[in-house]
Amino acid sequence: MTKILQSWIDGVAKQAILDFVAAVTTPDNPDFVPQEERIAVFDNDGTLWCEKPMYVQLDHILRKLAANAERDPALRAKQPWKAAWEKDFNWLGAVMTKHYQGDDRELKILLGGILTLSEGRSVEQVEAEARKFIENERHPTLGLSYRDCIYQPMIELLQYLEANGFTNYIVSGGGRDFMRGFAQDLYGIPRQRVIGSTVAYRYVENETGSEIVQQAELDVIDDGPGKPTQIWNVIGRRPILAAGNSNGDLPMLNFAGGTPSPTLRLLLLHDDAEREFDYVAGAEKALQVADEQKWTVISIQRDWQQVFPE
Amino acid sequence: MTKILQSWIDGVAKQAILDFVAAVTTPDNPDFVPQEERIAVFDNDGTLWCEKPMYVQLDHILRKLAANAERDPALRAKQPWKAAWEKDFNWLGAVMTKHYQGDDRELKILLGGILTLSEGRSVEQVEAEARKFIENERHPTLGLSYRDCIYQPMIELLQYLEANGFTNYIVSGGGRDFMRGFAQDLYGIPRQRVIGSTVAYRYVENETGSEIVQQAELDVIDDGPGKPTQIWNVIGRRPILAAGNSNGDLPMLNFAGGTPSPTLRLLLLHDDAEREFDYVAGAEKALQVADEQKWTVISIQRDWQQVFPE
Repeated sequence: MTKILQSWIDGVAKQAILDFVAAVTTPDNPDFVPQEERIAVFDNDGTLWCEKPMYVQLDHILRKLAANAERDPALRAKQPWKAAWEKDFNWLGAVMTKHYQGDDRELKILLGGILTLSEGRSVEQVEAEARKFIENERHPTLGLSYRDCIYQPMIELLQYLEANGFTNYIVSGGGRDFMRGFAQDLYGIPRQRVIGSTVAYRYVENETGSEIVQQAELDVIDDGPGKPTQIWNVIGRRPILAAGNSNGDLPMLNFAGGTPSPTLRLLLLHDDAEREFDYVAGAEKALQVADEQKWTVISIQRDWQQVFPE
Repeated sequence: MTKILQSWIDGVAKQAILDFVAAVTTPDNPDFVPQEERIAVFDNDGTLWCEKPMYVQLDHILRKLAANAERDPALRAKQPWKAAWEKDFNWLGAVMTKHYQGDDRELKILLGGILTLSEGRSVEQVEAEARKFIENERHPTLGLSYRDCIYQPMIELLQYLEANGFTNYIVSGGGRDFMRGFAQDLYGIPRQRVIGSTVAYRYVENETGSEIVQQAELDVIDDGPGKPTQIWNVIGRRPILAAGNSNGDLPMLNFAGGTPSPTLRLLLLHDDAEREFDYVAGAEKALQVADEQKWTVISIQRDWQQVFPE
């Protein structure tokens, strides 16, 4: 057997995890939680894998938009094809920061363009492309394949929880069908436990059979208050452990637990410019609440011996 | 150990089930299916429990509408409160039959009234009421408590499948939050595997904590083509076994399997006026397709030794 949480440095965060798991799994402990109620939810981007300099899925999307602009020059004057075609990462990077600051105007323009990519695509096709993308493409600065941009300590945490009777779910603002392409392989999280944003589906029957295809229309935005509502839609239980890294995770972190139950809330702080990235943009409010409420903040610099898999 | 499918009479339907399960669970069989892909989906009303003379949930709703009309006489002149108050079961019974015949005008009026009951109610409250209702109220003609209106042979089928590595889901046009109140208890199906129609949620935070409340707005109609799309939303896999009893189950039955995989499609025929009910209204098309495609039709009269639990 390998050492428990071996990529974690002994300290407050690691100890909080060990203490919590011991308490909820010990039958005569007042904080004991039956196995079926040991629900753990994890944000994906910036919590299970790297989200800078831009979301992995955004890179995938931008290449598709740029390919469209390559085929159709008229698109090159129009956002978001313009930014994708010109590789204008400033425009793009600012979109999500503005979103977390409450300004969604450019997010709507970006989403409008992204949605055109979904129309009529089968869910199997979306997943296969996602899998191929993260296996074949590389992170722009870390010198890693995208599939290796996962955080080794979080993988160990997922495994440790599962070994202790927890059921782990991804609850991400990212595209669910995209994540389903690799969640089992990268995180050991099966497809029915991937919760994310999604477009509307259309059910199609023809002579050769039936299939589910995506439509160019948003169905669920799994961010902010959308996270607890999707948790209830899909799981129907209040998690006892929640991990996130941004303001969009606050409602999910607040929703975890409940007054009488033991709860572990983990907020990942990106403070390691050398090994990963150092930023708080979009996480200011979450960090403030974590401080006020004494949630467990995980510092990459202080708490992780190793960031990415060997 | 009890006998397998002991409430079933030996015959074509029982044999089809036994043969299918044997084939998909035998490793050297060409039809072998790995455990994680053994997904079985079951309609609820008319498939796992009785749906006549009206849906159990509709009875629950009508009593609530009547109680509203009791408090507010002005409502007594207005549908659906009028029908609920006057116990006009003809108006009500016709709504779903018309729906399955393609006429949704009265369904919209009924739904509008039903939705007013949801506004601001916590999901826990909805579940607790559902549990209480089926435990305390009785079926109008069968002489049974509602909780005993489940089909014993289908309970045995669920257990038999689970014992063979299947994962069973409910996929019902009925209200998901209502069914979550008793699905584990009645069917052994846990809350995260209950798929149904649902209203939109609102996430509420206040000084005492956070909760999910229902809104007076439809979110998902889990019927007809909504069944396969919800199956993909929640499960993300194509079922290999699907069971239903009405036209609203046809897309789900069609979606099950897929060309190369082994598939079992079960259609329950209500043909036993003596022990249950005898009707085909709303199931005409499904029965026709079942006949054309050689799906397995389960006849209550011919295939079931016993209908309800002892």
